[in-house]
Amino acid sequence: MLSNDSYPDPADPDAQVWAAMAGDLMRSLGRGRPWLLMEQTASRVNWRPVNVAKAPGQMRLWSLQAVARGADGVMFFQWRQSRAGAEKFHSAMVPHGPVESSPTWQEVVGLGGDLHRLDAVCGSRVQAEVAVLLDWESWWALELPSKPSARLRMIEQLESYYRPLFEANVTTDFARPSDDLSAYRLVLVPNLYLVSDGAARNLAGYAASGGTLVMSFFSGIVDEADQIRLGGYPAPFRDLLGLHVEDFLPLGEDGAEVRFEDGTVDRCEIWSELVRPHGAEELATFAGGTLDGRPAVTRNEFGDGRAYYLATRLDRAAMSGLLRRIWQEAGVRPVADAPAGVEAVRRRGGESLLFLLNHGQQPAEVRTAGGALELISGVQLPSDGLQLAPREVAIIREPA
Amino acid sequence: MLSNDSYPDPADPDAQVWAAMAGDLMRSLGRGRPWLLMEQTASRVNWRPVNVAKAPGQMRLWSLQAVARGADGVMFFQWRQSRAGAEKFHSAMVPHGPVESSPTWQEVVGLGGDLHRLDAVCGSRVQAEVAVLLDWESWWALELPSKPSARLRMIEQLESYYRPLFEANVTTDFARPSDDLSAYRLVLVPNLYLVSDGAARNLAGYAASGGTLVMSFFSGIVDEADQIRLGGYPAPFRDLLGLHVEDFLPLGEDGAEVRFEDGTVDRCEIWSELVRPHGAEELATFAGGTLDGRPAVTRNEFGDGRAYYLATRLDRAAMSGLLRRIWQEAGVRPVADAPAGVEAVRRRGGESLLFLLNHGQQPAEVRTAGGALELISGVQLPSDGLQLAPREVAIIREPA
Amino acid sequence: MLSNDSYPDPADPDAQVWAAMAGDLMRSLGRGRPWLLMEQTASRVNWRPVNVAKAPGQMRLWSLQAVARGADGVMFFQWRQSRAGAEKFHSAMVPHGPVESSPTWQEVVGLGGDLHRLDAVCGSRVQAEVAVLLDWESWWALELPSKPSARLRMIEQLESYYRPLFEANVTTDFARPSDDLSAYRLVLVPNLYLVSDGAARNLAGYAASGGTLVMSFFSGIVDEADQIRLGGYPAPFRDLLGLHVEDFLPLGEDGAEVRFEDGTVDRCEIWSELVRPHGAEELATFAGGTLDGRPAVTRNEFGDGRAYYLATRLDRAAMSGLLRRIWQEAGVRPVADAPAGVEAVRRRGGESLLFLLNHGQQPAEVRTAGGALELISGVQLPSDGLQLAPREVAIIREPA
Repeated sequence: MLSNDSYPDPADPDAQVWAAMAGDLMRSLGRGRPWLLMEQTASRVNWRPVNVAKAPGQMRLWSLQAVARGADGVMFFQWRQSRAGAEKFHSAMVPHGPVESSPTWQEVVGLGGDLHRLDAVCGSRVQAEVAVLLDWESWWALELPSKPSARLRMIEQLESYYRPLFEANVTTDFARPSDDLSAYRLVLVPNLYLVSDGAARNLAGYAASGGTLVMSFFSGIVDEADQIRLGGYPAPFRDLLGLHVEDFLPLGEDGAEVRFEDGTVDRCEIWSELVRPHGAEELATFAGGTLDGRPAVTRNEFGDGRAYYLATRLDRAAMSGLLRRIWQEAGVRPVADAPAGVEAVRRRGGESLLFLLNHGQQPAEVRTAGGALELISGVQLPSDGLQLAPREVAIIREPA
Repeated sequence: MLSNDSYPDPADPDAQVWAAMAGDLMRSLGRGRPWLLMEQTASRVNWRPVNVAKAPGQMRLWSLQAVARGADGVMFFQWRQSRAGAEKFHSAMVPHGPVESSPTWQEVVGLGGDLHRLDAVCGSRVQAEVAVLLDWESWWALELPSKPSARLRMIEQLESYYRPLFEANVTTDFARPSDDLSAYRLVLVPNLYLVSDGAARNLAGYAASGGTLVMSFFSGIVDEADQIRLGGYPAPFRDLLGLHVEDFLPLGEDGAEVRFEDGTVDRCEIWSELVRPHGAEELATFAGGTLDGRPAVTRNEFGDGRAYYLATRLDRAAMSGLLRRIWQEAGVRPVADAPAGVEAVRRRGGESLLFLLNHGQQPAEVRTAGGALELISGVQLPSDGLQLAPREVAIIREPA
Repeated sequence: MLSNDSYPDPADPDAQVWAAMAGDLMRSLGRGRPWLLMEQTASRVNWRPVNVAKAPGQMRLWSLQAVARGADGVMFFQWRQSRAGAEKFHSAMVPHGPVESSPTWQEVVGLGGDLHRLDAVCGSRVQAEVAVLLDWESWWALELPSKPSARLRMIEQLESYYRPLFEANVTTDFARPSDDLSAYRLVLVPNLYLVSDGAARNLAGYAASGGTLVMSFFSGIVDEADQIRLGGYPAPFRDLLGLHVEDFLPLGEDGAEVRFEDGTVDRCEIWSELVRPHGAEELATFAGGTLDGRPAVTRNEFGDGRAYYLATRLDRAAMSGLLRRIWQEAGVRPVADAPAGVEAVRRRGGESLLFLLNHGQQPAEVRTAGGALELISGVQLPSDGLQLAPREVAIIREPA
């Protein structure tokens, strides 16, 4: 069984984004099979410079987030807090002091009770309409030295795509470039520096058959031996994207700007390049500098589908707006229409189970099906509105 | 004879605080016996990135500060400034150039003359009503890795207690946890992470016999083998303090806030913890966050004495106010009521000698006994007011 | 033939200053003989954290800058952009992609055409009225550890002298302290920490014979064995400068201030020292701090010449103003009176060739001789005003 050790930093306001990404990755590595949250801490670790404790309810919230994203089990390191050795200040299910008054102990016991009520979840599956491509060989090659910019890091490219999807409750799988992608409405390629001929054909075939693909800069540059694919970048994707890239112009700390068709100007960073369209339509151009007026974001019809290209990293708001427009066009539907901070994921087995998790600091109102059963409380929801306290979780059996 | 090499950085506006602390420590290591300032520089060292020179008068001021805090001798590294080698740009008593025009040489010669007039000082003792506990084994154990917070450093905890005492001219000894503390009106424990059974009993006995003790967080956590004292933190001090600590919640860069009984809100940093009082009175509580309303500073009557507990590091102003209130309650008296920047220390042998040192940039007016003799100048002070120029020192033979 | 590999960073707004300095140094190392720009990149390197590309025209501009400063040839690393290995993202004359559409390729081809028209330049010489002293042994000794300040770096001292000359189009050679300096109207000594007896005599002789010399602090301190020259700093230059230096007072990050005779107050940094004049005239004094009112800049008549001394590093504006005043007094003439950002250098062989290079972002108007021939375009200039586009270069055959 695939398992993960998950230690998000409670001091990081984005911890739930990274934890969700890790959960989706675990599920995807197992091709959708349930996985196991093997290690987490009951409250605090002891290996960061400052080991902030989980807030009340946060351990339970993050445990059930793992379940929402496909885990069928939740475990801890460590059972009893060690008396000696390097891990004696790492929290445990059983603390050094008296258990009766310990909030950590109480929360662990409470979680055990909650999990007992979730038999219906076991074995159920999460389904996604979107895939994010992640290829380890390409990641390793990308982060070898002597590139145009050392500021380009795979994990940050991934995050720039994943966050808008997470925040809009669009469920995502991770996939390899050679996987059969035909089941996805949308395939996202944050970076694919290294690509094999077969994988390149696979991506083109996906779009040609009606799929929608979004690819960022510095993809398709080298083959499996890390040797340049000659003839004009990105050699294996020029037809798919309807363009070629003349050269790379990495951006310094100051970044640059792009202008969209509607006149909106947004910041961009890390990268720019001189793009020559051969059929691709320009959705945004660089504004100012050497590349003023040159394409920054393009769209190309290809067979029965289409391929978008991003020649820079857009800032958060612009990326969010662009991806939303693309996924809507591709017919992708969010799991639920929930307020900001509320995560929604659906698992389906014999029945459909909707997980709602409030990561926010405020109570949130979520619309649900009236009369549905909430699994943890065992209570039938009276109406179609559910009030979710901060760090509270609801698991709703949706009417067929 | 105990000796110290003292190289405070003239670029550090707090240099005199650290130098005073080092002087008190030297004296305390020798159980009050006079010590020797073995090495200092006449003006400038050569091993810092920028080696700022001592200002005119600063070498003399710092030399006599060492004497005030118990030194019976003042020496230098180096006699003649080397012509070759790694230390050729380290100042010396005799400079590279002509001595006649050298201010450094003149100041060294002047200091020699001053010291000749201080025979009455030799062998005299400094007395303190306050002891700060410092235990090297505990310090070493505290700063081993894998603690709740790597931001907790012994020397900074010491400084947070020592500075308010220094600034108020409350003379302080350093003591070990197993020392006989009965002569002190007040015992301060900035941190005592590691403690033996005997030392723990000693501290409890001190308070039970009428002493006043102040202890900060993360004390009494492990035994001499660095193994957790089980049963609830801080196991050996729960009765003394009238509380137990459920768990540690280290603070990030932003710190937190505490609210005192009178409604004052102050900043705190580094640490917080969940305190459960069993008899201790709450003097301040955390304000905001997970610990909102929970105890941050407590006071517990214990036998004939009392013990204060600080569950966080207070900011400078709050710490100063709290300690002042406690030392006044304990009957501790400052050496003199001097303006800010003027250090006052008393040495007593056959007679009582009051050292006044103006570390400030402005002249300072100090009240003294009319008719007293100033040792360096050999002049009888005409009235009860003494004008002290910047970096000037007076050593006054106090009337019996 | 002397050659240089030149990789200025296009992200550095001062890149042309450093490149000019390197060019002057190459020429000077060869005692004025033409040199070779052996390596540069056509657009971008791949070994900086962020490898910003050269802007359009910048490769040509910097190539011709090397020619202006004495190069007779311009070459590249690398011919064809590698397909594999650590340098595959280092630009080349021939790119990975199609050459037809590549701006880099086009610029390389264009430069080849330009160089074909510059036969008249080959073998011609650059003449300078100013020499900056640079001594490698002294540089190495200066940057060994254990100095009064580690913030004093030779290259920054050089730059603080070179920049004002560059910006005013005053052409400069580099020279060694033992060179025959009699041909120069002005000799600048940014730092000469280590000096031999012979070199010290040479400098004094230069001034005694009518030359003007400017020397900065911490010069003449040690002999060739890095041993202090005793008797008062700077021992071998006290007569030349008309002063001695009592001691060094390095400055921290905050720096200090100097006041000139006319009341102007400027910032200074890195260094200050206690100067005792013995005949030198004070041009500026330190303002504030321990050295308030003490000499910071002096001038000493010596034989038929004179020597200036700087006891601190002046800020850019003050240094520029002081040097301008000194070179005017010494009869040094700039190559041309050109607007800010326009570099002017003259090479002379059979004929006089004036190079004008616009490093600015705006077009610049330069006065030239009417009817002169511009070598690259082969066009006779119609009038005495020349319009120079951003990054444009003109090479003008001046009427005899």
